[in-house]
Amino acid sequence: MTKISYLNRQFLEHQNCLVHIEDRGFQFADGAYEVSLYQNKQLIDGKNHLLRLMRNLQELNIQHNFTIEELFLIQQQLFIKNNLTQGICYLQITRGSASSRIASCPKNLTPTIVATVTEIKTMPESRFNEGFKVITSPDIRWLRCDIKTVNLLASTLINQKAKDLGFDDAIFVRENIITEATFANVFLLNRQNQLITHPANNHILCGITRNRIIKIAKEQNFEVIERNFDYQELISAKEVFLTSSSLLIRPVYQIDHIIFNQDKNFNVAKLLTQQYNIFIDSHFS
Amino acid sequence: MTKISYLNRQFLEHQNCLVHIEDRGFQFADGAYEVSLYQNKQLIDGKNHLLRLMRNLQELNIQHNFTIEELFLIQQQLFIKNNLTQGICYLQITRGSASSRIASCPKNLTPTIVATVTEIKTMPESRFNEGFKVITSPDIRWLRCDIKTVNLLASTLINQKAKDLGFDDAIFVRENIITEATFANVFLLNRQNQLITHPANNHILCGITRNRIIKIAKEQNFEVIERNFDYQELISAKEVFLTSSSLLIRPVYQIDHIIFNQDKNFNVAKLLTQQYNIFIDSHFS
Repeated sequence: MTKISYLNRQFLEHQNCLVHIEDRGFQFADGAYEVSLYQNKQLIDGKNHLLRLMRNLQELNIQHNFTIEELFLIQQQLFIKNNLTQGICYLQITRGSASSRIASCPKNLTPTIVATVTEIKTMPESRFNEGFKVITSPDIRWLRCDIKTVNLLASTLINQKAKDLGFDDAIFVRENIITEATFANVFLLNRQNQLITHPANNHILCGITRNRIIKIAKEQNFEVIERNFDYQELISAKEVFLTSSSLLIRPVYQIDHIIFNQDKNFNVAKLLTQQYNIFIDSHFS
Repeated sequence: MTKISYLNRQFLEHQNCLVHIEDRGFQFADGAYEVSLYQNKQLIDGKNHLLRLMRNLQELNIQHNFTIEELFLIQQQLFIKNNLTQGICYLQITRGSASSRIASCPKNLTPTIVATVTEIKTMPESRFNEGFKVITSPDIRWLRCDIKTVNLLASTLINQKAKDLGFDDAIFVRENIITEATFANVFLLNRQNQLITHPANNHILCGITRNRIIKIAKEQNFEVIERNFDYQELISAKEVFLTSSSLLIRPVYQIDHIIFNQDKNFNVAKLLTQQYNIFIDSHFS
């Protein structure tokens, strides 16, 4: 079956989805994006993703007249047209294609909108139980990590660096503070059974799944504290896990050369994953 | 006359130069670029631009088999095909188009290469004499500013901010140190007639024109010192100017609300511009 994607108000064969070389997304990373999970024929936290996208377009001062309802429908139609019942949707909006390359942000362009869907398989429990290992790396990203933009070169380079070293991901450290992973937020469970995660400021992306997990953890009577934490606190944790809309919850047992969770005790990560799955199922009505 | 651009080994009508939406340049800002000046039918410092591009592709670990000679020829042919005797060439190489979006840097892709040329008019002397005014802004960019990549969102947003405030450009400040302008290097001439500019490290792009101006200034018996300087030293300068391959030398008389060079004494900026033009003319043989 030919993959169908969406480009500027048209559903097209994926291979025919092309943008101009003067698109601001291609020349200046001048655009925002979202990745949403689709399961049981429902977009999970779909509205929250689109609300964030709207806020981010506003932060970039990208003029547009998309509505949340319209974007929601495009994503759902894409899954239907591609005959998928679960997967992820990638949605990107750039400032558009300029008539020539200029250093500032041209006004009155027609924004470029792109959406694609991809099937994903649920991670088998055995893979979850095996756990994940991460390196730490200086956080060389820009200082507006709170905006989900395609200005992603640092994240992708450092993600590759982790892979090259035989690790699954990297966790960024800025001025001795753990910020987040390359494309996921970081939580730790300390010896007092408190869940700690970086506060939502300009140093991290305030993940939709991060927020959902915080809500779920509180419902499970965990104390959740959004505050800075350092490397020492990280490797002293009982559990560490990463969250993102496409990776869901990934328990970590090794950080750099330190196997801090040798027993692979992922009880809280597992509990929260179960509760998150119950939340996902509740979308199905 | 229809504008001709270059895309992946083909000279095409500009409007037909399209890249796929999965191009790593569009999704991850995963590419490098150069902007070179062409005057008197010659690429100015053409080889130095291409040497830097090669180094940058290596820094990004983008596999390719382009040669400097080939890239040089593409640029020259573009000017000829567009019947231009002076202008700028924009040359961009990305990691290429992946079959699907992944967080790391896929290997063995075919890189995407794009080149366009644009006519530019020589800045009239009256505009030079009028001078330029800049704001200062926190340097929110990533920490690999030494690589000339399309990860440019911070620069373009701050450039627009300066324009919105009625200024010509912005100068970045990181930890009280002046780094560079949004798309240009910064020089100051102090009261001891020393020319000071930020050292070439990961906080600035080591401009080809910056290096050329340093060489020319030394030939004119100026002491040129590459070292850190702060806001106070900047606004205490006799002269301040910006350099870039497309903007050449732009004298600055106002920084934020401070008109530090009220007389618009741009003597050294003017002398270096004259000498730079002599250097440009020397390319013509």
